[in-house]
Amino acid sequence: MKIVVPFKRKNAKSRLAGILTQEERDALAMNMLCDVMDALHGFEIDVLTTSMLSNSEVDLSPHILLSDSGLNEALNEYLNSRAGHDNDSVMIVMADLPLISSKHIKEIEELDADVVIAPGRGGGTNILYIRDPSGFYVDYYGASFIDHLRIARENGSSVEVYDSFAVSTDIDEPDDLVELLIHGNGRASRMLADSGFKVVVRDGRVVIDRNKM
Amino acid sequence: MKIVVPFKRKNAKSRLAGILTQEERDALAMNMLCDVMDALHGFEIDVLTTSMLSNSEVDLSPHILLSDSGLNEALNEYLNSRAGHDNDSVMIVMADLPLISSKHIKEIEELDADVVIAPGRGGGTNILYIRDPSGFYVDYYGASFIDHLRIARENGSSVEVYDSFAVSTDIDEPDDLVELLIHGNGRASRMLADSGFKVVVRDGRVVIDRNKM
Repeated sequence: MKIVVPFKRKNAKSRLAGILTQEERDALAMNMLCDVMDALHGFEIDVLTTSMLSNSEVDLSPHILLSDSGLNEALNEYLNSRAGHDNDSVMIVMADLPLISSKHIKEIEELDADVVIAPGRGGGTNILYIRDPSGFYVDYYGASFIDHLRIARENGSSVEVYDSFAVSTDIDEPDDLVELLIHGNGRASRMLADSGFKVVVRDGRVVIDRNKM
Repeated sequence: MKIVVPFKRKNAKSRLAGILTQEERDALAMNMLCDVMDALHGFEIDVLTTSMLSNSEVDLSPHILLSDSGLNEALNEYLNSRAGHDNDSVMIVMADLPLISSKHIKEIEELDADVVIAPGRGGGTNILYIRDPSGFYVDYYGASFIDHLRIARENGSSVEVYDSFAVSTDIDEPDDLVELLIHGNGRASRMLADSGFKVVVRDGRVVIDRNKM
């Protein structure tokens, strides 16, 4: 099995612009990628991105695979390139899943289905495991969970849905940072806490607040 | 083990007032309760509520336990009443979890920890399993996940977090209905679909929309 992690470098996490500067959003995205790389330790990993990445704590360089294509095009080229190899299964893991651990990856790999989908909140696909990439293609954006179910069925593939709160938690919007602060214990959650973020209860809802530094 | 399901009858699901009438919110809450009762079939269940409930499809009457207290007080009285009984473990299951199934309940019951917490989105506690209710108390509202972790540790109890997207999905706000429409297959999701709701993609986000009937 190969694991591929698409990583968007430019204007990452733009929906967090109201509470994080561009520099902080870039750092958060990089910390989440490193948390994901920690969870994937021991597997064969390709990080699919548009330009070279470097990090002082995690050596990403052996994993970088450059592509100028958009997300779907780059991933579909990748799937095509894997089809027909021995042991050609592919797991696509999003880079903004700071709560995942190696346990999730192993459990997904051990399921029997041809295709395993771990949903994200809001109709998304956070991890997608494809046992045989020939004839499969991805369609991210929008309600990709529904699209990937349909593609798998059209392809005659059996499908299993992997049920995990941790895997469902992708970090896109301010409310998602609540989950990261409460349930996280990696680099991304430490960065948030070190940046003065904490959870508070306001009008009965749990939200994030930032201490004046 | 006893399972207790607290059910708020009056002004249920008020955060959905912008898109559902009072009558629809009441019907949705009742349908979700019935979905939860289906998932709990075969277990000993008490539905803790303030006044008698009836439903044409599910016979709730043998399960109703009346209390005028607020949520925390009613549940803490319940836990007290169970402490010291043989086989006195208690599982508290929220009534607005239409995606749960009996598999979740069995898996939680089979874990070894003294206390099992299945988190909800936003710091909540959606299922709470307490092997020995003596010395334990609940504190719902706010970031109850953090509070229940603390209470268990103060009590010297071992804790396990149960990781499920389905269990984490409680239905409080319009965005939660997206999950119900995409992932649900029970009464509550059918009611929504029959009421003309569907998921659409708007500005890159998956949201709900309602057909003119």
